[in-house]
Amino acid sequence: MEKTRYQRGLDIMNEITLTDNKEIGTHMDIVAAFKDLAPDLESYIVEFAFGDIYSREGLTQQQQTMVTIASLVTLGTEPQLELHINVGITIGLTPKEIVGTIVHLIPYTGFPKVLNALKIVKRVFAQRNIKIDDLAMQSN
Amino acid sequence: MEKTRYQRGLDIMNEITLTDNKEIGTHMDIVAAFKDLAPDLESYIVEFAFGDIYSREGLTQQQQTMVTIASLVTLGTEPQLELHINVGITIGLTPKEIVGTIVHLIPYTGFPKVLNALKIVKRVFAQRNIKIDDLAMQSN
Amino acid sequence: MEKTRYQRGLDIMNEITLTDNKEIGTHMDIVAAFKDLAPDLESYIVEFAFGDIYSREGLTQQQQTMVTIASLVTLGTEPQLELHINVGITIGLTPKEIVGTIVHLIPYTGFPKVLNALKIVKRVFAQRNIKIDDLAMQSN
Amino acid sequence: MEKTRYQRGLDIMNEITLTDNKEIGTHMDIVAAFKDLAPDLESYIVEFAFGDIYSREGLTQQQQTMVTIASLVTLGTEPQLELHINVGITIGLTPKEIVGTIVHLIPYTGFPKVLNALKIVKRVFAQRNIKIDDLAMQSN
Amino acid sequence: MEKTRYQRGLDIMNEITLTDNKEIGTHMDIVAAFKDLAPDLESYIVEFAFGDIYSREGLTQQQQTMVTIASLVTLGTEPQLELHINVGITIGLTPKEIVGTIVHLIPYTGFPKVLNALKIVKRVFAQRNIKIDDLAMQSN
Amino acid sequence: MEKTRYQRGLDIMNEITLTDNKEIGTHMDIVAAFKDLAPDLESYIVEFAFGDIYSREGLTQQQQTMVTIASLVTLGTEPQLELHINVGITIGLTPKEIVGTIVHLIPYTGFPKVLNALKIVKRVFAQRNIKIDDLAMQSN
Repeated sequence: MEKTRYQRGLDIMNEITLTDNKEIGTHMDIVAAFKDLAPDLESYIVEFAFGDIYSREGLTQQQQTMVTIASLVTLGTEPQLELHINVGITIGLTPKEIVGTIVHLIPYTGFPKVLNALKIVKRVFAQRNIKIDDLAMQSN
Repeated sequence: MEKTRYQRGLDIMNEITLTDNKEIGTHMDIVAAFKDLAPDLESYIVEFAFGDIYSREGLTQQQQTMVTIASLVTLGTEPQLELHINVGITIGLTPKEIVGTIVHLIPYTGFPKVLNALKIVKRVFAQRNIKIDDLAMQSN
Repeated sequence: MEKTRYQRGLDIMNEITLTDNKEIGTHMDIVAAFKDLAPDLESYIVEFAFGDIYSREGLTQQQQTMVTIASLVTLGTEPQLELHINVGITIGLTPKEIVGTIVHLIPYTGFPKVLNALKIVKRVFAQRNIKIDDLAMQSN
Repeated sequence: MEKTRYQRGLDIMNEITLTDNKEIGTHMDIVAAFKDLAPDLESYIVEFAFGDIYSREGLTQQQQTMVTIASLVTLGTEPQLELHINVGITIGLTPKEIVGTIVHLIPYTGFPKVLNALKIVKRVFAQRNIKIDDLAMQSN
Repeated sequence: MEKTRYQRGLDIMNEITLTDNKEIGTHMDIVAAFKDLAPDLESYIVEFAFGDIYSREGLTQQQQTMVTIASLVTLGTEPQLELHINVGITIGLTPKEIVGTIVHLIPYTGFPKVLNALKIVKRVFAQRNIKIDDLAMQSN
Repeated sequence: MEKTRYQRGLDIMNEITLTDNKEIGTHMDIVAAFKDLAPDLESYIVEFAFGDIYSREGLTQQQQTMVTIASLVTLGTEPQLELHINVGITIGLTPKEIVGTIVHLIPYTGFPKVLNALKIVKRVFAQRNIKIDDLAMQSN
């Protein structure tokens, strides 16, 4: 039996956002936070964003997340950038790919957006225990 | 002997932008167009953008181009988007990956930026003889 | 029997965009234009944008369109602005309300975005035979 | 006798921003904060923004505020968004209209700008004692 | 006798935009174009933008125009950029200062906005008979 | 002997950012903060941004900084705006020129971006002991 849009979206959403660390925000936290204000947001996020868009064929989850991060750096919307850098770690982007995605944007968005994004990367890597020293060594 | 920044940048730039079709714009056309106004633009584009940024390790050329396209869709700067959709085709992104990169951004940038980008994709695919029918069939 | 999301969205979409003038673009033209590239766009536009978002209670169609126009002026995405100025006329916003929505944004977006939007209003009003002289007289 | 631009602007400004709650910021607080840095800002805000733009005929105060909120969500300038959500409550927009204005923008600005705006709505509704439960019930 | 805001604004506006070349757009053309749609735009542009803002002490006309061009490049609003590059020439910015203002923004806005702006500079310099060769020689 | 790009960039960077006040951030702090994450950022900032772009002839340091501030106000990237308002003070822009640059942008970016920028000016002027009262007196 085919999954409903809601179930399909929820499965992907959980797969890419859930971690053992309760301090790391998830998309479900957002849905819960706005349940009173706009109860239909749950359907838009779970069914449309994940059940429709993230369920499309054509891009791997790693590609989807690099593309998402690139757009959020360009928009400059920091809470969502933090969330999707976390997603990147959870689905297996390497630290080098996450940093590389952001640094690659300097010629397109300029330094300010990139530097503000790297500050968030630094905070998330600390929270997720990503060892930056290893990364620096790799870069040399 | 190690290549100079200029030579390293020029090699990458040529590799990802040159095609047999003389009607397709390249980064070198841009450099040439502004040689009188700002002769140092050549160094900024060839040496910095390509010799430094595109020469970084960490992302493949396919990943670099998906990330670039995502940022340009979000910025809405159409001439550069056209150029980098062409780059995408030249370096081997599949039509499905190019379209998929752009459609994936609907939840982040909204429909208007995505629809304006898809119009450019359509024009470039026609110019490059990418058969859209095959793509539609793949999507089913 | 409750309508499907698709039927509900299609009904609203047709109600607010169809006119007797074949030269005026509609959302269905967009769906058709991208059927080959991204056949699922139809579902995102008809079912999500119209079947979900435009079907929400709380705002009248007039309010929805004023809010849409305000956002599109701020984004500066001109093809969509043209489309929704047409929607505004079709669903019964007065010329004064359309112009008033845009002029009200000067303190928030600055003059350039507003002036570029008014150019589009002028073109659409001409195409739809909105008599500007009457409007000017009303303003005095 | 006709009011001066200053008096006309001040009257509108006070009408739409003053509340009994001293903790809620007003446009006059902004004017006062920058009196030393740029004393002429008072004239630009009171006389131009309110005496000219908000004094135009054509939109009701409710329409003006919905349009303002839509533009500020799209710009992502949060202090001004907070101020005008407060204005919305003061001039009689219903909670459903305020939330509806913002949620309606998902297809145009994407989720990030909308979610960041709803966080501010939640904070302002709490400060102004808007009961969210009633709103949730209305939405069902 | 002190000038009225209108007269003060009109004098500055004419001083910085009028040229012998009838093909070059002016702010007065904009005012005229929208006289039917929004007759009060004339007052906002002449009295507020020029009579208030451009009349402030503190910046020279050359500084005002460099600052204006920098903001318009960043916004990407091309018709206004064309207008103010023309203003720059009229009030005596050197070609080197105009090009320098735009090229200086590469680290802040990225290449796409800068390249799109330089295309407009090239067109305006041709229209105004600014000899680019001399400029290139100066740069060496 | 001609300076290297690095030395030339470092000299300019130090000249325009170093102050006696250790609490004021510098570009070197940014370079240091990201040394682990992206060690090549140092070269992009010192060699490209300062060694190439800030080393161009054509604009004075005062003009470069006014143009930079104008772009950052328009982008709304606040940490960089704070940094370059500090640069402005260090290289000798008068308080009136800094405030004047920002207030001049009201017609182009709207009030929200300008007011958010002036809040930062106020904080930086306090930190740098710029006496605002003198400024207000000058403005009258």
